[in-house]
Amino acid sequence: MRGAVIYAPRDVRFENLDDPKILQPTDAVIRTAATCVCGSDLWPYRGLEPIDEAHPMGHEYVGFVEEVGSEVTSVEPGQFVVGSFATSDNTCANCRNGWQSNCLNREFMSTCQADYVRIPQAQGTLVATDEVPDEEFWPSLLAVSDVMGTGWYAALAAEVKPGSTAVVVGDGAVGLCGVIAAKELGAERIIVMSRHEPRQRLAREFGATDIITERGEEGVARVKDLTDGIGADAVLECVGTAQAMQQALHAARPGGNVGFVGVPHEVAIDGQELFFSHVGLRGGPAPVRRYLPDLIERVMTGRIDPGKVFDLVLPLEQVAEGYRAMDERRAIKTLLKP
Amino acid sequence: MRGAVIYAPRDVRFENLDDPKILQPTDAVIRTAATCVCGSDLWPYRGLEPIDEAHPMGHEYVGFVEEVGSEVTSVEPGQFVVGSFATSDNTCANCRNGWQSNCLNREFMSTCQADYVRIPQAQGTLVATDEVPDEEFWPSLLAVSDVMGTGWYAALAAEVKPGSTAVVVGDGAVGLCGVIAAKELGAERIIVMSRHEPRQRLAREFGATDIITERGEEGVARVKDLTDGIGADAVLECVGTAQAMQQALHAARPGGNVGFVGVPHEVAIDGQELFFSHVGLRGGPAPVRRYLPDLIERVMTGRIDPGKVFDLVLPLEQVAEGYRAMDERRAIKTLLKP
Repeated sequence: MRGAVIYAPRDVRFENLDDPKILQPTDAVIRTAATCVCGSDLWPYRGLEPIDEAHPMGHEYVGFVEEVGSEVTSVEPGQFVVGSFATSDNTCANCRNGWQSNCLNREFMSTCQADYVRIPQAQGTLVATDEVPDEEFWPSLLAVSDVMGTGWYAALAAEVKPGSTAVVVGDGAVGLCGVIAAKELGAERIIVMSRHEPRQRLAREFGATDIITERGEEGVARVKDLTDGIGADAVLECVGTAQAMQQALHAARPGGNVGFVGVPHEVAIDGQELFFSHVGLRGGPAPVRRYLPDLIERVMTGRIDPGKVFDLVLPLEQVAEGYRAMDERRAIKTLLKP
Repeated sequence: MRGAVIYAPRDVRFENLDDPKILQPTDAVIRTAATCVCGSDLWPYRGLEPIDEAHPMGHEYVGFVEEVGSEVTSVEPGQFVVGSFATSDNTCANCRNGWQSNCLNREFMSTCQADYVRIPQAQGTLVATDEVPDEEFWPSLLAVSDVMGTGWYAALAAEVKPGSTAVVVGDGAVGLCGVIAAKELGAERIIVMSRHEPRQRLAREFGATDIITERGEEGVARVKDLTDGIGADAVLECVGTAQAMQQALHAARPGGNVGFVGVPHEVAIDGQELFFSHVGLRGGPAPVRRYLPDLIERVMTGRIDPGKVFDLVLPLEQVAEGYRAMDERRAIKTLLKP
C-alpha cells in the first residue's frame, strides 16, 4: 500500500509501505475512505517537535473494515466505521468513567495517512454507521473522528450551557468545530477570536455571533466589552501556545471555565493567578469515543456539517501539498482521498 | 479598643487601637463575639510573606452588630452575625453568579483579631442568625466564616458527588472541614493525608474512612492502591505549596477534579502535564457568602460541628500565644475570645 512518511521538517513523502496486518486478536484493518492533515501534524512539520527518525503520519480516519481479529465482534468486514485518534478498549476503569482517550490500553494512532490502517482495540475504538453513508457525509464523519470530537470536548470542558457566552480562541479546524459545539450546546453568544477572513466567514456560518480580531490583552479587553466587563462564561482554548492559554484564562469571568484542547507547548500556569481568577480549567486529548454515537447521529441527520472545515481536497498521493497548504495557511484543513 | 498587630515575623502584639467607626453608609461595626488565627496568618508570621509595615491581623469573625451605616437595612444592632473574610455587595455581576469572593467591591478583611471590627459592604456581607445562638454554637459559626466555608468550596470545586471517592491533602483546619464537606456531599470514601495523630483522630470523627501517612509520590501510590489504580474522583488541596499541588494533581484520576483552596505560594502548573491528566482544576478564595445560609442552618440543626477544629481557646489578649501554638503545631486552630 501507499502512505505518508515524514523524514524531516517540511519533508513529507508518499511511499510504498508494507500492508498492515492483524497483529493482535483485538486488531482490525480498515481500508481508508478518507483521511486528513491535522493542525497538530504541523508541529513536527514546522520543526517545533523533534523527528527522531522517519515515521508514518496521520491519526484521523474513516473507512471500511477489511479484516478483524478473532476477538473483534462489534464490527465486521464491509462496514463503514468511524474511530478516534486514541484507541480505547472501552471496558477499563477510565473508559467506564468516560475518559476513553485515557484508556489503560490506549495507543495514539499515527499511520492513518495511508491506504490501509491497523486499528488496535478495534472492538472499543470503532463505531460502525447503520449503513454505508453517502459519500457526501464522509468529510463530516471524518471530522467527527478528531476535530469535531475535540471541539465538542472543548465546549463540554468549558461547561458551555444553554444561554451562556462562549469565547473560542483559535480559528483552526478545532476552533471552528468548537463554534458548532457551543451552538449545539445552547450558547447564546459565541465570540470567535480570528483575523482570517475565510475562517471568520465559516465561523459565522457555524454560529459565531461576534468576531474579535485583536489579540492578547487587547483581545481580552474586547471580550470584556461584550460581557458586562467581567468576561465570558466559557472559553475554548484551541491553539496550545502560552499566549493563547493566557488569553483564554483572562477572557473567562470569575467562576467561568476554560476548556483547553490545543496540545500545550511550553505552557506554564501560575497557580496564584489561577487561584484568584476563580476560573476552572480542564483539558486533554478529547475522549472522542464517548461522543461518537451522538456526533455520528448529528451528522447523519444533517444537524451539523463539520466537514465544511475541509476547504482543500486532494488525492492521498498529494499529501505533501496538503501539508504545505495548511502550513502556509492557504487551507484550513486538507482532506485526503486514497 | 484592643487588637492584634503584627510587627515582624513572630512578633504579634496586643495593643490599644482606635475604635472602628462607620466610614461609609454601607459599613457596619460589630462587637466581636469570637475570632481566631488562620493558617494563612502563619505565612507572614513565619516570614514567608513580607510585612512592609506593622498592621492589624485577622479575617474571621462572628459578633454582635453595634452600629450600621445609613444604607444597611438587612441587619440591625443587637443581632448576631456571621460574615466572610471577603466582603461582598451581593449585587454585582460576580456576586449574582455566586462568586461573592470576587465581588467587584470586594475587600479582604484584615482587622478582626480585635474587640470591634468595621465591616464594609455589610448589607451583602453579613448574615444574621434567627436569634442569638447559645454560646456553644459560636465556634462552629466562627468556623463557617472561613475554614468551614473554604472546606465546603474545596469539596464543591473538586466536584465531590454522592458515592465518590475524595482525597484531602492537608490536615489543617481547612482540610478537616473539607472532610466534613465531602461527607455532607455524599462521598463514600474519604482519604485524608495526615501524619499527625490528633488530626487523624478528628478527621475520622468528621468522616474520614482512610488515613495515608506517606507523602509525595509515595502517598500518591497509596491513593492509587485504594482506588483501582487510577486515582480519586475528587481531591481537595488545602495547603498551597507546590508539593501539595503536585500530590493533589497526581492523586486525581483521569477526568477527576482538584479543588484548591490553599493560597498558592510559588506554584506553577505544567500545561502539558495537566493536559494529559484530564484533571479539572478550580481554586480560589471561597465564596463563603454563597454558602452562609446553608452552613449556618447545618450548624444550628447540629448536622455539622466544625467548631471542633478549635483545640485551643484563649482570651483575645493572649493572641500572641495563639499564633505560637499554631506555628509550633501544638494547636490545630486557636479561638480567641474578647
